[in-house]
Amino acid sequence: MKFIRFEKYGQLCQGLLTGSEVQRITGDMFTEHTIGKECFRLDEVNLQPPCMPSKIIAVGLNYRGHAREMNMAIPGEPLLFLKPATAVIGPGAPIIYPKMSQRVDYEGELGVVIGRRCRDVSGQQAPDYVFGYTCLNDVTARDLQQKDGQFTRAKGFDTFCPIGPCIETELDPAAARIETRLNGELRQETSTADFIFPVYRLVSFISQVMTLLPGDVIATGTPSGIGPMQPGDEVEVRIRGIGLLQNTVAG
Amino acid sequence: MKFIRFEKYGQLCQGLLTGSEVQRITGDMFTEHTIGKECFRLDEVNLQPPCMPSKIIAVGLNYRGHAREMNMAIPGEPLLFLKPATAVIGPGAPIIYPKMSQRVDYEGELGVVIGRRCRDVSGQQAPDYVFGYTCLNDVTARDLQQKDGQFTRAKGFDTFCPIGPCIETELDPAAARIETRLNGELRQETSTADFIFPVYRLVSFISQVMTLLPGDVIATGTPSGIGPMQPGDEVEVRIRGIGLLQNTVAG
Repeated sequence: MKFIRFEKYGQLCQGLLTGSEVQRITGDMFTEHTIGKECFRLDEVNLQPPCMPSKIIAVGLNYRGHAREMNMAIPGEPLLFLKPATAVIGPGAPIIYPKMSQRVDYEGELGVVIGRRCRDVSGQQAPDYVFGYTCLNDVTARDLQQKDGQFTRAKGFDTFCPIGPCIETELDPAAARIETRLNGELRQETSTADFIFPVYRLVSFISQVMTLLPGDVIATGTPSGIGPMQPGDEVEVRIRGIGLLQNTVAG
Repeated sequence: MKFIRFEKYGQLCQGLLTGSEVQRITGDMFTEHTIGKECFRLDEVNLQPPCMPSKIIAVGLNYRGHAREMNMAIPGEPLLFLKPATAVIGPGAPIIYPKMSQRVDYEGELGVVIGRRCRDVSGQQAPDYVFGYTCLNDVTARDLQQKDGQFTRAKGFDTFCPIGPCIETELDPAAARIETRLNGELRQETSTADFIFPVYRLVSFISQVMTLLPGDVIATGTPSGIGPMQPGDEVEVRIRGIGLLQNTVAG
């Protein structure tokens, strides 16, 4: 099932997306919801981020190919960092190029959406705590990342975490194909089969550090092929089975 | 004024603290509130974290003395990192020593509590966006901080961000005395006059990166004198004019 959030008649709504048809739901997508009678075409609604995480936990260097590209050793444990919830935008919303940076990169990623409060779970238990998957762009001010050492400023600007278009509850996280396009040109193309730390291992590891809450998002790392964007560019992250997350860069 | 949150009769309440008297308030402490008739003695209520931030933005290396202690150059810009909201605990709550670490340090700090949505403000405008100040302990797994490079895991464990006991709205943030005690022994003692980046400069800088929301907390950095804690230890952060934040370490 594909869960979305959208704005209609000035209201923030939740819905189920089937093809190009949106059925409004009431209740909480993470616990109990009811499918209502209201139905819209996808082009009649204004898509919003499919959830609003209390935190976004991101993983550095989680693809073997990207580790090679960066000349980095394969890490023994996931390297964690946080992006603030204020960075989240939805499909179609502009990524604002900050004045502080001269180099802003896309990083297409698989986003994992947590469905249940999750603390100290094993890899075997982890699937019970995952609600679904979304496309995510871990936008990064590369110059500030290098300058600061800590990733927070470089990855924490408002609009630096596009997610969407939906949360797909049925997806094999070990065999998802991710493609990132800049102005239509393919720049990143890989399968999550290349993960150093698979999704359930990440959920388990992070849950041993911090409690994960419903709607929290794990950014699972970016594959090789990262590169800069300019104002006016259009960036797309597409994951087969989930859909297409498209954003433009505004100066 | 000293704002607190407390639990009473199983309810989470907001209040004003005067001496050892607590007056319950209704409404929102950040916008409009009404002082009610309910009144308690401080020892009759169970203090909670005085606010629940959507994010905690922390600053590395913000005291000249601590920079010397760490053999670090004085930075030209604040170095930012994030602690997750799930790390927040209140006065008296235990700091849980994580299995992953063999070295957990206290870091006593002045916490700045944001009162109004704040984006791209100047240092001159910043005071309008600050609600008040609290004591904060930026608990840090020093071994993991060194291992990871990124501070997220080391500083992100559940219970690693004690705040409280109250939010004091009247305080000169450029002349606050901070003391940290471990089992009663003075370990950190300084004035925020030693800040490399004063509070309003920090608010301005951070607001140029990410939107700050009411209740968000800025951890302004720790002075010299950091050191390890053991299970069973009692740690206190005291700021004159605010009060005493006391926590114990549980194994």
